[in-house]
Amino acid sequence: MSKTAAGRFFEEYRLGEVIDHAVPRTLSGGERALYHALYPARGALYSSDQFARACGLRASPVDDLIGFHTVFGKTVPDISLNAVANLGYAEGRFLAPVWLGDTLRAQSEVIGLKQNSNGRSGVVWVRTSGINQNGTVVLEYVRWVMVRKRDADAPAPETVLPELAGTVRPDDLVVPAGLDFSAYDFTQAGEPHRWGDYAVGERIDHVDGVTVEEAEHMLATRLWQNTAKVHFDASQRADGKRLIYGGHVISLARALSFNGLANAQMIAAINAGTHANPCFAGDTVRAWSEVLDRAETGAPGVGALRLRLVATKGHPFALRGEDGKYLPEVLLDLDYWALVPC
Amino acid sequence: MSKTAAGRFFEEYRLGEVIDHAVPRTLSGGERALYHALYPARGALYSSDQFARACGLRASPVDDLIGFHTVFGKTVPDISLNAVANLGYAEGRFLAPVWLGDTLRAQSEVIGLKQNSNGRSGVVWVRTSGINQNGTVVLEYVRWVMVRKRDADAPAPETVLPELAGTVRPDDLVVPAGLDFSAYDFTQAGEPHRWGDYAVGERIDHVDGVTVEEAEHMLATRLWQNTAKVHFDASQRADGKRLIYGGHVISLARALSFNGLANAQMIAAINAGTHANPCFAGDTVRAWSEVLDRAETGAPGVGALRLRLVATKGHPFALRGEDGKYLPEVLLDLDYWALVPC
Amino acid sequence: MSKTAAGRFFEEYRLGEVIDHAVPRTLSGGERALYHALYPARGALYSSDQFARACGLRASPVDDLIGFHTVFGKTVPDISLNAVANLGYAEGRFLAPVWLGDTLRAQSEVIGLKQNSNGRSGVVWVRTSGINQNGTVVLEYVRWVMVRKRDADAPAPETVLPELAGTVRPDDLVVPAGLDFSAYDFTQAGEPHRWGDYAVGERIDHVDGVTVEEAEHMLATRLWQNTAKVHFDASQRADGKRLIYGGHVISLARALSFNGLANAQMIAAINAGTHANPCFAGDTVRAWSEVLDRAETGAPGVGALRLRLVATKGHPFALRGEDGKYLPEVLLDLDYWALVPC
Repeated sequence: MSKTAAGRFFEEYRLGEVIDHAVPRTLSGGERALYHALYPARGALYSSDQFARACGLRASPVDDLIGFHTVFGKTVPDISLNAVANLGYAEGRFLAPVWLGDTLRAQSEVIGLKQNSNGRSGVVWVRTSGINQNGTVVLEYVRWVMVRKRDADAPAPETVLPELAGTVRPDDLVVPAGLDFSAYDFTQAGEPHRWGDYAVGERIDHVDGVTVEEAEHMLATRLWQNTAKVHFDASQRADGKRLIYGGHVISLARALSFNGLANAQMIAAINAGTHANPCFAGDTVRAWSEVLDRAETGAPGVGALRLRLVATKGHPFALRGEDGKYLPEVLLDLDYWALVPC
Repeated sequence: MSKTAAGRFFEEYRLGEVIDHAVPRTLSGGERALYHALYPARGALYSSDQFARACGLRASPVDDLIGFHTVFGKTVPDISLNAVANLGYAEGRFLAPVWLGDTLRAQSEVIGLKQNSNGRSGVVWVRTSGINQNGTVVLEYVRWVMVRKRDADAPAPETVLPELAGTVRPDDLVVPAGLDFSAYDFTQAGEPHRWGDYAVGERIDHVDGVTVEEAEHMLATRLWQNTAKVHFDASQRADGKRLIYGGHVISLARALSFNGLANAQMIAAINAGTHANPCFAGDTVRAWSEVLDRAETGAPGVGALRLRLVATKGHPFALRGEDGKYLPEVLLDLDYWALVPC
Repeated sequence: MSKTAAGRFFEEYRLGEVIDHAVPRTLSGGERALYHALYPARGALYSSDQFARACGLRASPVDDLIGFHTVFGKTVPDISLNAVANLGYAEGRFLAPVWLGDTLRAQSEVIGLKQNSNGRSGVVWVRTSGINQNGTVVLEYVRWVMVRKRDADAPAPETVLPELAGTVRPDDLVVPAGLDFSAYDFTQAGEPHRWGDYAVGERIDHVDGVTVEEAEHMLATRLWQNTAKVHFDASQRADGKRLIYGGHVISLARALSFNGLANAQMIAAINAGTHANPCFAGDTVRAWSEVLDRAETGAPGVGALRLRLVATKGHPFALRGEDGKYLPEVLLDLDYWALVPC
């Protein structure tokens, strides 16, 4: 009778079941400082209490992606320990800021199941919520993963494919209470470009690159209490390399996008996301963005830009080949809404 | 007249002398966040203020091992800078929680001395206390080290071997004031196993492994202001490797033991400990535990488990060879008491 | 029309112009903890609230060099992104402590310009101020950098060479309000040496060495939001090495100097500084100091020592060859004033 958790296998998920993930986590200035050390993050709203107050918030909140990674990390032992692949994200929304001192826990509902035709694995869809100490849902997202079966002979569940929005509708974006960009300080933020300066279809090469070391991505991944073996244990692969947590690439790319999108301050939604190819230590990660859409929000001075953020270890603007498949140098293709001063 | 400290040599210790170690240290959420980044630590009590409050504490305390490493680091310049070997620990007790904002200092009393027969080194036993800003002793332990003599001709001191308990008696375990596990949330803690579920003799393979990088152990060792040259200076060894601080292996193993011992929340005592073999960057550290004993504590819902925690870079359950000696892949053999919900 | 910033070129600077650098930064215990993890820093005043209070301060301030790096990092996008070389520092003064919770921003005035005779680059002198949330200037310094021209045909500006003091005069040193070393605890500080124990001309080999890893210097440099490409992008050099931020070497050397200068608690001024040779991962950094001058300060128990701090990857006391040039193993030659108990 083993005391250790081996993670769930495909046949152990039930449609509609709600999983309370373990280990609530209180965040402090320590997590914020580490985020700045791990990623070239320079967003003024997440760097300065004064800047955040001038934007109507009570203090500088924790970076949206700190919240996301913290919640994601908690789901790993229940959702993705036996995952073969992290297939996608949808309907991600950031619903309330996370403040220093807040404690986050995570909960997931199984909303879709589909066994693969080979009978050895299946796809699980979960809607995950991050919840603070007051019971407020601060973020939510859907993700789906391919999970191995423990027993290939276990019966297949009824196939249920959730209906997922291709993108979060602008009306469903939540602007944090009080956010007001009407007195926004573009000089302190680092760039002059306003919401109205970005045209749909415009592409931005973010220019900079970061070569990743094993120690860095392991520090980051542990920080989010994500314990998936492939990120830490060199004996899992013949070449001794550790697979870099996909969220590490998201944060690298988002931080690199400061150069050209310094005013894309807050992430309001994650519409979709694909980890197109694995990332390993030694890779030099670059990023480019494309403006996909624009929307008004109703909040004073606050517009929304829908952005495609691509992380690549190759040339700028790499995306898909002639066959429609992601090029091998593409690491991430993320579709998100950001809040930007008008 | 050198201004730099060369550390003490064996002949400079006097029985009964009390050494006040330098550089008091105030701990914050920064140290806690770094601990989570450096080790795969997931204990709920040290992760969440809410969880800790539900267990009767006023907030999430600092991990016991943060306190231990902080205190240990302060002793290095006076005790182990010229140590040939860190030989053992005994009678370690955690006497009061350390809170964010607390300032720790360290004090050691020399309680034993024995010159080696070769006349070139000797063993020094010290009882070290970690003391907070209110003068409360928060932890204490005995350790003994083999220290070089500066002058082989210096006279040998009288041999005094301290009488040390082989294990801290259950009656001597200190449960933090207010600790109450009677409403313990096993779901949020991550595992269902109670104190009563662990049988003496039971062994647990903690399954996961972490491959260590030079940058990680140096960050950790510096964080505790431990400055022993062998951990940082590649020119000290022909192969350029740096010897990993033994305490780094303790924390790695303890964090890895979450998987199977998630409810072994607090360390109450360190009965004994041996750094069986050196650990170097590139090693993949694994851990296993054995239940050595069980005791009641009198505190509501709080039991104690005496556990052997073994760190190994080889196969599960590695310990000793037929000759009774530690196998070469064994890094650590630690005997401790943990507080566990009943 | 690119949205990304390419940094300024020589012909874009105007004498007397004032540049407000972007991204104000709120500091917390997280930055302090990371500083301890990144550097072997042990100064008691920056480690312990209790020690700092016993010296008349309201709490332990942030290490002077955390303030310096934070301010310096903010200037990089405007001053040194296209710099060929970081030529020197002068007239650096620390004017007020930085406390946890403070928010720093940076401002620079262009005080000198000189086009090089090749017409392709020029030297820019700036006086940079670090300013807290109350508008108090907490530190200031002059630095000069050689910057490329974008257009070699752009007309040369009038040459203006600023008059810079070779050293900050003792009368211009600012002692933090309330600082009082008359009850200084030498035991807790770690060494017995007082201001009066240091003789002009005395040299100290700080003995210890630290071998630097890529992950460490990148974590540090990002922490200060310094984004210069050469520190992060392995593709910038044929050997894949990343140039280590000069400030990282300053902090390494200053931390190493604890051993022999544990009581050189606060940096009051930076008189001059030269990054003599580049530093790369794998280098083992050592440090030595020379006492250049001594001065009284008028504050109770507080003296000032003018120190040369040299970082070297070679033998102790390395500095210049017979030709007067820095030896290839010399990384840093820094001239500063420190506050020391009398």
